[in-house]
Amino acid sequence: MSQARRSFASDTITPMAPEVLDALARVNLGTAHSYGEDAETTRLTTLARELFETELAIFPVTTGTAANALALTAIAPPFGAIFCHRLAHINTDECGAPEFYTGGAKLLPLDSADGKIRAAQLAAPIAHAREMGVHHVKPAAISLSQATEWGTVYTLAEVASLAAEAHAHGLAVHMDGARFANAMVRLDCTPAAATWKSGIDVLSLGATKNGALAAEAVIFFKPELARDFERNRKRGGHLWAKTRFLSAQLNACLGNGLWLRNARIANTLATRLAQGLEGCGIALLQPVDANEVFAAFPAPLIAALRAQGFEFYEWPAPPGLNSPVVRLVTAFDMREADVDALLEAIRQAS
Amino acid sequence: MSQARRSFASDTITPMAPEVLDALARVNLGTAHSYGEDAETTRLTTLARELFETELAIFPVTTGTAANALALTAIAPPFGAIFCHRLAHINTDECGAPEFYTGGAKLLPLDSADGKIRAAQLAAPIAHAREMGVHHVKPAAISLSQATEWGTVYTLAEVASLAAEAHAHGLAVHMDGARFANAMVRLDCTPAAATWKSGIDVLSLGATKNGALAAEAVIFFKPELARDFERNRKRGGHLWAKTRFLSAQLNACLGNGLWLRNARIANTLATRLAQGLEGCGIALLQPVDANEVFAAFPAPLIAALRAQGFEFYEWPAPPGLNSPVVRLVTAFDMREADVDALLEAIRQAS
Amino acid sequence: MSQARRSFASDTITPMAPEVLDALARVNLGTAHSYGEDAETTRLTTLARELFETELAIFPVTTGTAANALALTAIAPPFGAIFCHRLAHINTDECGAPEFYTGGAKLLPLDSADGKIRAAQLAAPIAHAREMGVHHVKPAAISLSQATEWGTVYTLAEVASLAAEAHAHGLAVHMDGARFANAMVRLDCTPAAATWKSGIDVLSLGATKNGALAAEAVIFFKPELARDFERNRKRGGHLWAKTRFLSAQLNACLGNGLWLRNARIANTLATRLAQGLEGCGIALLQPVDANEVFAAFPAPLIAALRAQGFEFYEWPAPPGLNSPVVRLVTAFDMREADVDALLEAIRQAS
Amino acid sequence: MSQARRSFASDTITPMAPEVLDALARVNLGTAHSYGEDAETTRLTTLARELFETELAIFPVTTGTAANALALTAIAPPFGAIFCHRLAHINTDECGAPEFYTGGAKLLPLDSADGKIRAAQLAAPIAHAREMGVHHVKPAAISLSQATEWGTVYTLAEVASLAAEAHAHGLAVHMDGARFANAMVRLDCTPAAATWKSGIDVLSLGATKNGALAAEAVIFFKPELARDFERNRKRGGHLWAKTRFLSAQLNACLGNGLWLRNARIANTLATRLAQGLEGCGIALLQPVDANEVFAAFPAPLIAALRAQGFEFYEWPAPPGLNSPVVRLVTAFDMREADVDALLEAIRQAS
Repeated sequence: MSQARRSFASDTITPMAPEVLDALARVNLGTAHSYGEDAETTRLTTLARELFETELAIFPVTTGTAANALALTAIAPPFGAIFCHRLAHINTDECGAPEFYTGGAKLLPLDSADGKIRAAQLAAPIAHAREMGVHHVKPAAISLSQATEWGTVYTLAEVASLAAEAHAHGLAVHMDGARFANAMVRLDCTPAAATWKSGIDVLSLGATKNGALAAEAVIFFKPELARDFERNRKRGGHLWAKTRFLSAQLNACLGNGLWLRNARIANTLATRLAQGLEGCGIALLQPVDANEVFAAFPAPLIAALRAQGFEFYEWPAPPGLNSPVVRLVTAFDMREADVDALLEAIRQAS
Repeated sequence: MSQARRSFASDTITPMAPEVLDALARVNLGTAHSYGEDAETTRLTTLARELFETELAIFPVTTGTAANALALTAIAPPFGAIFCHRLAHINTDECGAPEFYTGGAKLLPLDSADGKIRAAQLAAPIAHAREMGVHHVKPAAISLSQATEWGTVYTLAEVASLAAEAHAHGLAVHMDGARFANAMVRLDCTPAAATWKSGIDVLSLGATKNGALAAEAVIFFKPELARDFERNRKRGGHLWAKTRFLSAQLNACLGNGLWLRNARIANTLATRLAQGLEGCGIALLQPVDANEVFAAFPAPLIAALRAQGFEFYEWPAPPGLNSPVVRLVTAFDMREADVDALLEAIRQAS
Repeated sequence: MSQARRSFASDTITPMAPEVLDALARVNLGTAHSYGEDAETTRLTTLARELFETELAIFPVTTGTAANALALTAIAPPFGAIFCHRLAHINTDECGAPEFYTGGAKLLPLDSADGKIRAAQLAAPIAHAREMGVHHVKPAAISLSQATEWGTVYTLAEVASLAAEAHAHGLAVHMDGARFANAMVRLDCTPAAATWKSGIDVLSLGATKNGALAAEAVIFFKPELARDFERNRKRGGHLWAKTRFLSAQLNACLGNGLWLRNARIANTLATRLAQGLEGCGIALLQPVDANEVFAAFPAPLIAALRAQGFEFYEWPAPPGLNSPVVRLVTAFDMREADVDALLEAIRQAS
Repeated sequence: MSQARRSFASDTITPMAPEVLDALARVNLGTAHSYGEDAETTRLTTLARELFETELAIFPVTTGTAANALALTAIAPPFGAIFCHRLAHINTDECGAPEFYTGGAKLLPLDSADGKIRAAQLAAPIAHAREMGVHHVKPAAISLSQATEWGTVYTLAEVASLAAEAHAHGLAVHMDGARFANAMVRLDCTPAAATWKSGIDVLSLGATKNGALAAEAVIFFKPELARDFERNRKRGGHLWAKTRFLSAQLNACLGNGLWLRNARIANTLATRLAQGLEGCGIALLQPVDANEVFAAFPAPLIAALRAQGFEFYEWPAPPGLNSPVVRLVTAFDMREADVDALLEAIRQAS
């Protein structure tokens, strides 16, 4: 029997799900028209329209950073402003990709304790920007992360209220869904309800963390926003010659519920882990809505776990907390035994 | 027995080579550190250094457009000029990716009948640019395609002479090697001789057309040029979370000679096709040095072949030629029977 | 009596016209709202609408490079293509400003002996671009220089035919009018006829070479194209705090015919110079339609004139001409005596 | 006798100082080499070196936005981060010019009550960025405004401490000196002490608000940082053909102490205004170190003053203040009577 897995560093360290590898093998027969003129890519559009119950335009790309940057380019001009959470991946982890792709649009960070931005935060900075006229970047869009960077999940009502406020000001609404499947499991609603019915205009839908080799999708629920997408994707170097292999991954994930099954595994393990930590008297920083657990670990505990080979990231502690913080991420390829082994090690070290 | 393959449209329509799929399956076990901190990526550097017999920095990316744009960004400032052939892929087929990534650098096209640029073409425009001072973009680099967009291959002496002239003017030298393996087969020399020993500073090394799923490499033979590469790659959205799957493809291609074996198949079939065409009295436009054949096809022949399901692109005819031109591309996954079937169809249609 | 002026280098070496200095002094009283909310700027719009007999949006900027780059940004997306003459100022003399401002749009150069581009040159490259789809930059605009960089002036019929062809393909039409006044004098028509009635969508109207301190105007004859102009101007750093001083220059030039009077002086002197050169047996390279004379000067003549302090630029000789070429520029602040002194020096040196 | 001036909106509403107009007239004689090859521009360098007592490179440009954006481009790569105050002009009033010119660098805002950033604010975000590696923009520079956007002036010790901390982390130091002259008057030190001796690497030195038509200077105290400046300026459209008129303005301001005389007038009037307001029982928000006064005005007072034609901007109130805030700006062209008239109106309205 194999040793328990000791890395809770990220869901990016995972392999492909077997179903994804099978899909790559299955489409690896003969030739196919390149650059997206293939059957898998056609099927992806069909599949997405069924799944989201609406007309839409869907484009596969390789990375979440590319998905976000290209999505934002469709809704923010070079002189535009994009509101997002201060800790949003687009603001802190993409080395300026949104600024690069949009030609210089500005991210205007909003703050909150739980990683969510709120409708009430928009009116004042938008009014200020309007007053400033051409001297200020022009409010163009908001971007929310679902699940958030703190592992929390917006309720449908929260999304709808935020999107309504944005739309009332003429702003477009982007959702960074790098962990959209994990949020879906939590919300237990239809993909349509989670997105366009709640006011989302464009979604970055992640699959890489949830079983794909390297595949994300940009989905426009207002297809007219997609007008320039294909050229922007091409000049970003993100149009695969053999697009069938990109689309096939997404089809494998979305086509038979794999994305939700995988996310459910991860979420359930995160809940198990969270409950176990609380049982050990360890404080959680946030509700565990998806597959990430943020916990206050004493420094000696961190050292003890690392000494045993456990891996995880320390996280900047929020103001007022006088303890190191760790992020523990579960994933589709983990088992209960992996979680239990960590909990056991914590108990012994405490 | 399967029907002969009828598409000579491109080497981008090919599947993965079986060895590449095997490699993906092989590394699809357990976790691996993400973003390139994995064993496959380490091995890629080792392998490339052995293969090219020198210190170098190698970075895997997904597409040839990304490889070229990122390579050029390392050697041309936003106000720089890059000399290339008028028909270079970077000038005509990448939707402005080099301009996008470099922040606005300008491609200055040079012309020639055979797709090669020549040392003698550089002095005059460089002198002119220098005279113009700050009013003109600053000559920064040249980019040559090996093999060229006309399917020809520069001799080592041609590369060396061009690179020496560029260096004499302080310009860096980029090689677009989307079909570098095909050129290597033709040149029958060491990779070192074909590149840095001939004056190449940075190489885009293609694998996608030659057996990979989606993998190219940017190789800096002057590692100091790579200083900003990783951040530019990240903000271009080209850093894979699961980089092991990108590196594994390249390792499969480069590690045991697969790249040359595959290219040899393609080149040999192209030669067979070219000889067959000449046997049919059809004029070739260029020497067939690699895996592309450019031929003057009468319009009725084109129609007849298309009616039978053959696929290929028509190409802009060079000045003075009063006939349609077609491009026929062979690839590693084709057989002699495929070529012979096309030749037979031509004979019958003529 | 003052010595004859010996520089024919450029019309950029000129001082302000006295009327422009007077205008600066006149508006230098008390305060005025900044950033264009002033009476001079309002008057500029009124004046331009009267002069061009149409609704339009006019924006003053400082330099011709800024005017061109900002005008092109309004009509070409980052992935767009702009057709222009190979020798167009935007292609050779602005250090990549159009690429910078548009976010990477590509200038596609067309060639001709007289500096003019022609309707018949557009169809083929546009058709090619369309065929290439997302792989190729998207044809978005043409830019013609009036007067051209060879000192020639498009006839109204030439402009109209070129613009009609561009519009038929969905392209917008920009006119670089750095020497528009000189062209107007030649054409002897209304400003409306020279521009929007001939199909011009946006004009860079130069005043700096013709008497201003530093003032050009971008005029949109389809005001909806101006939608983003003000923000692009601001982020380019081209919105003056004290815009009244910019608008006042243009009002001084345009308001009472000064621009045409000044241009007529320059054109008349150029004609006098051209006739004098022909009288000396010196070949002209182009018809002298405006205020620039291109002539084949033997190298000893060039040396002799330079030795006497005459200044002018040598120009790249067109293919087939086996002689140095010089450009001689006249301007509003020159006198017949200046021209005659040069001619006399040529006669003595010959 | 003329009516008291009623606008305290900004120092951008001012005319030219008479000495600047005289300088324009003085250099408006005959021809001069264009694009900066003129005697006035040469003199500007000499003058600046004398004034700042060091080698330096100085470049005149038209606007403060251009000066800042071009200065930052010299010290921050496209993937770089620039720390500045949340309310810095570059962050809020330039419509994204720094992002545009740098090719997408990111401004990382720091906050404080008095408009100053402090050395102690740098270490944590720099450490975080370093940990994040290529995922995060790379700390490259800081930018401080002297005087600040709250009208306060950094002491020399504050500047030195901030610059030392930045340098210790390898960051370059930019000073936005749109109101540098006003700060100089406050500091009463040499220009050298206020800048490079305190660790400033590059200065945007404003003249427009202080008497010029439209002139600012970018001064590099480490001339090697200026390497690419001239091309970046050209492609930004900021190289004047008739640069003599730009340099002449700066020479008029800097050459005989005009900049300090003018700034002293403005500062003295601001102090007079501040004292008068306090005499009326009106609270000031900040120390009045330069020529801007921020005060808490009851809404009825604002209305009453506006009804009499007084002009000024309302400002976003800082957290915790429950009153409208106004900004009152004095300038070189105002008189004590103007200030006294406002104070009298306030007394009567209260």
